[in-house]
Amino acid sequence: MKVNQINVESNMNVSDLIDNFDASGVLGAGRVARARNILVDMIQDKDMNVFMSLGGPLIPGGMRNVVSKMIKEGHVNLIVSSGANLTHDLVEAFGGAHYRHEGKDDEELNEEGIGRIADINVGSDDFTIFETEITKIFEKIASKRKVISIQELLYEIGLLVEDENSFIANAAKNNVPIFAPGIIDSMIGLQLWIFSQDHDFTISAAGDMPYLSDIVFGSEKVGAILLGGGLTKHYTLASNVITGGLDSAIQITMDRPEAGSLGGAPLEEAKSWAKAKCGSNLASVVGDVTVIFPLIYASALDKINSD
Amino acid sequence: MKVNQINVESNMNVSDLIDNFDASGVLGAGRVARARNILVDMIQDKDMNVFMSLGGPLIPGGMRNVVSKMIKEGHVNLIVSSGANLTHDLVEAFGGAHYRHEGKDDEELNEEGIGRIADINVGSDDFTIFETEITKIFEKIASKRKVISIQELLYEIGLLVEDENSFIANAAKNNVPIFAPGIIDSMIGLQLWIFSQDHDFTISAAGDMPYLSDIVFGSEKVGAILLGGGLTKHYTLASNVITGGLDSAIQITMDRPEAGSLGGAPLEEAKSWAKAKCGSNLASVVGDVTVIFPLIYASALDKINSD
Amino acid sequence: MKVNQINVESNMNVSDLIDNFDASGVLGAGRVARARNILVDMIQDKDMNVFMSLGGPLIPGGMRNVVSKMIKEGHVNLIVSSGANLTHDLVEAFGGAHYRHEGKDDEELNEEGIGRIADINVGSDDFTIFETEITKIFEKIASKRKVISIQELLYEIGLLVEDENSFIANAAKNNVPIFAPGIIDSMIGLQLWIFSQDHDFTISAAGDMPYLSDIVFGSEKVGAILLGGGLTKHYTLASNVITGGLDSAIQITMDRPEAGSLGGAPLEEAKSWAKAKCGSNLASVVGDVTVIFPLIYASALDKINSD
Amino acid sequence: MKVNQINVESNMNVSDLIDNFDASGVLGAGRVARARNILVDMIQDKDMNVFMSLGGPLIPGGMRNVVSKMIKEGHVNLIVSSGANLTHDLVEAFGGAHYRHEGKDDEELNEEGIGRIADINVGSDDFTIFETEITKIFEKIASKRKVISIQELLYEIGLLVEDENSFIANAAKNNVPIFAPGIIDSMIGLQLWIFSQDHDFTISAAGDMPYLSDIVFGSEKVGAILLGGGLTKHYTLASNVITGGLDSAIQITMDRPEAGSLGGAPLEEAKSWAKAKCGSNLASVVGDVTVIFPLIYASALDKINSD
Repeated sequence: MKVNQINVESNMNVSDLIDNFDASGVLGAGRVARARNILVDMIQDKDMNVFMSLGGPLIPGGMRNVVSKMIKEGHVNLIVSSGANLTHDLVEAFGGAHYRHEGKDDEELNEEGIGRIADINVGSDDFTIFETEITKIFEKIASKRKVISIQELLYEIGLLVEDENSFIANAAKNNVPIFAPGIIDSMIGLQLWIFSQDHDFTISAAGDMPYLSDIVFGSEKVGAILLGGGLTKHYTLASNVITGGLDSAIQITMDRPEAGSLGGAPLEEAKSWAKAKCGSNLASVVGDVTVIFPLIYASALDKINSD
Repeated sequence: MKVNQINVESNMNVSDLIDNFDASGVLGAGRVARARNILVDMIQDKDMNVFMSLGGPLIPGGMRNVVSKMIKEGHVNLIVSSGANLTHDLVEAFGGAHYRHEGKDDEELNEEGIGRIADINVGSDDFTIFETEITKIFEKIASKRKVISIQELLYEIGLLVEDENSFIANAAKNNVPIFAPGIIDSMIGLQLWIFSQDHDFTISAAGDMPYLSDIVFGSEKVGAILLGGGLTKHYTLASNVITGGLDSAIQITMDRPEAGSLGGAPLEEAKSWAKAKCGSNLASVVGDVTVIFPLIYASALDKINSD
Repeated sequence: MKVNQINVESNMNVSDLIDNFDASGVLGAGRVARARNILVDMIQDKDMNVFMSLGGPLIPGGMRNVVSKMIKEGHVNLIVSSGANLTHDLVEAFGGAHYRHEGKDDEELNEEGIGRIADINVGSDDFTIFETEITKIFEKIASKRKVISIQELLYEIGLLVEDENSFIANAAKNNVPIFAPGIIDSMIGLQLWIFSQDHDFTISAAGDMPYLSDIVFGSEKVGAILLGGGLTKHYTLASNVITGGLDSAIQITMDRPEAGSLGGAPLEEAKSWAKAKCGSNLASVVGDVTVIFPLIYASALDKINSD
Repeated sequence: MKVNQINVESNMNVSDLIDNFDASGVLGAGRVARARNILVDMIQDKDMNVFMSLGGPLIPGGMRNVVSKMIKEGHVNLIVSSGANLTHDLVEAFGGAHYRHEGKDDEELNEEGIGRIADINVGSDDFTIFETEITKIFEKIASKRKVISIQELLYEIGLLVEDENSFIANAAKNNVPIFAPGIIDSMIGLQLWIFSQDHDFTISAAGDMPYLSDIVFGSEKVGAILLGGGLTKHYTLASNVITGGLDSAIQITMDRPEAGSLGGAPLEEAKSWAKAKCGSNLASVVGDVTVIFPLIYASALDKINSD
């Protein structure tokens, strides 16, 4: 296939730009276009359930409304989130905010009670409010349920959160289940443990496996959007082994493959493990999720709506 | 400090080479030397407990005996492992093996029942034996205990595994606790869940938090060796927040920092979160763990034994 | 500054997307937006000359029309190119093409006379035509000039190339000088040397320095767009030392900074060497040039045209 | 091939460690061992000329004595250097030094006249001395020769430099030619140009091509050690096209391959271009040259001396 040169012009639509990348077909531009094309196919395939994993600082990094929009549009059917992304979604839902880092030294930040994630800052006052508010929510839930799975807990939280941009709230309202296998290793997990110390309230760690299996078995096809992450990526892949693997998948990562970490592993590797089907459609993009995913999704929206 | 040129010669000791890196002090060589120096200080400090996190394919990638030696020498006091590293330790303990990838296509590997991790292959026959053997072990443990935490389970497994090179076995025999917050998302976790379906055997997910807290509170100082990983790194860091953070730490990673993933985050960032103390000794090495850690540890052994 | 969540919608303009990145301000999205903003300022500043360096496989990778458009629009005033980008521009000008790699083994490609650059293929037949055509051009130039500088040579070539998309041709027609300090190490350089063996035709290696110095001294301000590259980046930076450094610059690179290569060096480092002025506006984006630069430039076009 | 676990012990020889990496054979450790093995074969093969390219800040970064030792031991027969590595070799030869960066801001460094390369600092006073001394050397050479190629110039400089650790001096004394296709883009190149303004002294840019071709044609086999770099790597590879490519090669780089830069390109790609022979022995190591190369070379010395 010939490489066509990319053309840009003023007043250009995002999907026109990606169509130009598609006509080029090589290097990063080619990878972005193929990922966009697979995403469009996933969303348009009525027989395909779309799973999405959220690793890395996506919510503090500006992706909250994108995830919420995907839920509201019916473009994602199941989410696997890190505990941190859940925590930061609730920090914003309870009135907190994230700030751009202004270059202060980490020891200075420590004194001022500010935590840093790359060039993002978040203040301890917002975490204090988070602790108070999430505890109130736990109390409401614990008054109804004594034993609960993580997915059920996140559903109940979502129903109680009043924020039209919260992805946890949107997921609950739209019946998009959220799984969070590593939740215990996060601020929300810590609060959960503290709460369980003096309340009759137990989280069933393996409690989500039957439900997740049912969803996978009940899906004619499964596609996956893998955004960063080790655990969240693995859990999404592994849940599909029981049916021979994913039918299609895209991943966006900055990790490199040579040292063998799952985060940097090419999607092809998943075929050897029957986590992706032989013959499945796979595309990996090397890049920053906060740039690449909005670009791909905005472009996919045009293609979906134009059909 | 002046950069001294590195000298190499034949019949050179590993620690002489790293001493040359120390005299240079810059770029990768300087980072390796500083990490080695901090590791020596950690191990020699009688008041410091040394935590080690194992992320990425360390056991399939050849690090099993290194971890076991550290345990036997008393150079590590607590381990946080991914589920995968536990699984692969047991695969070898039960007679299985890992093989160097010979370049076959992932769809071919799938047909032959071979899973690939970067350039490492592992066969499904070895996993079949793993499933049989781990189930026998679960039966023995379940006959004594109905509810068990992950750390307790791994301790019991370690006592029952007969393999002088198994790090799980060595850890049990030397009272080095192993924590595995993401164990459920691995083959050992899957077998655990299957076993729990028809046995009265419950894993307490949050059950390890009091014990881990006790260890942290009981440590005058804590140092950490962070090898790869997102979840295992985070769990190790986060467990030390309750005492104001780590006193010293080294990490080895190939992930880059700009996109904000925890795996690539500089250790300095941990200070802002009180996961490392202000004034703590920290060194990050950008590199492949299977090269850098044996190099550092072999060199540290000379320094420790010579004092 | 608060991090605003990114919003995407269908039928979205590229500049609306980047405006959303700007409102977020963090991680990759923030870096892309800042680079776009600096690019807009560079182009709109009537007192600023814009230099652009072309390293890496930009022309084979689809960026030829983008570079040509920038020249025609008057958005770039001086180019520093690798020899390879010049060669590949002429390969296309003489009727050749680049193709997407279909996965063949490098030894197979060798037998078929196909060279590979990442996932781009180019055939030896096209290089044979290149050799014939460039030699004809050298003959025409040599009939007029016996000693010529690299920049002068590229200007003369540009006048003789009939291809509305060739950046060498567009540069000549629009009086945008092209410098190529490493031209000798490329196919065009090789042909030049072969031609010089039996013709009275000498390339003056240092011959461009007075002209380049004159341009720098004659520029009230200089901005730079640094796309990939070691030598081309360095030459662009170094040429501005004589006036105290660049006034503003953006770079796009996938190289990382720790090992000290110039390609991965942060632009801030240039301040220490007086290659960028203290107080200059600098932005680095970690990413693939073929994705990031069209994105930035398409967005910049809207901002420039709307003012 | 089975993956053997790596064993480390105290008082361990560098080559014993690499032998352990060899027995493992996977991930970074496997790559380091294979590169060591190829290096040993290269050096021991009496019919093979060994070319070495020096890109990135190798001399400021501590590799000067390693390069000099290789020359003195007869382990390298031809060098392709960046202009910067030549400049920094002479800075040290003339009494200057490099220092470890202590964390000052780049604008502060600028005010103090200190240039930064990653975490290395070098002062403007040392460059002032460099300018004076190199000019004296140019005067001596210009009194004998009016037209000179870059390789001849570096040979003449080497004969005049009195520093047993200078790689330029050692190369001259041991008849190891140094090529530097990008010399003009460096401080030594700048001084050369300034000197040529008021002296009858001309550098012949293409003057080295016949001599380099003669060496390649006269070599029964050629092996290459490619340390970092774009231009220096390319020049080394390209010089061997005339005989069908390299017979063996190792490279050490931190650049990644996806974006298509030559620095990150896998060596296999060189086969498609006939820059490496089909069937040649090739190994790439992803890592920091200042760590990996001394490790490999120290280990190779044992193997060579033991045979």
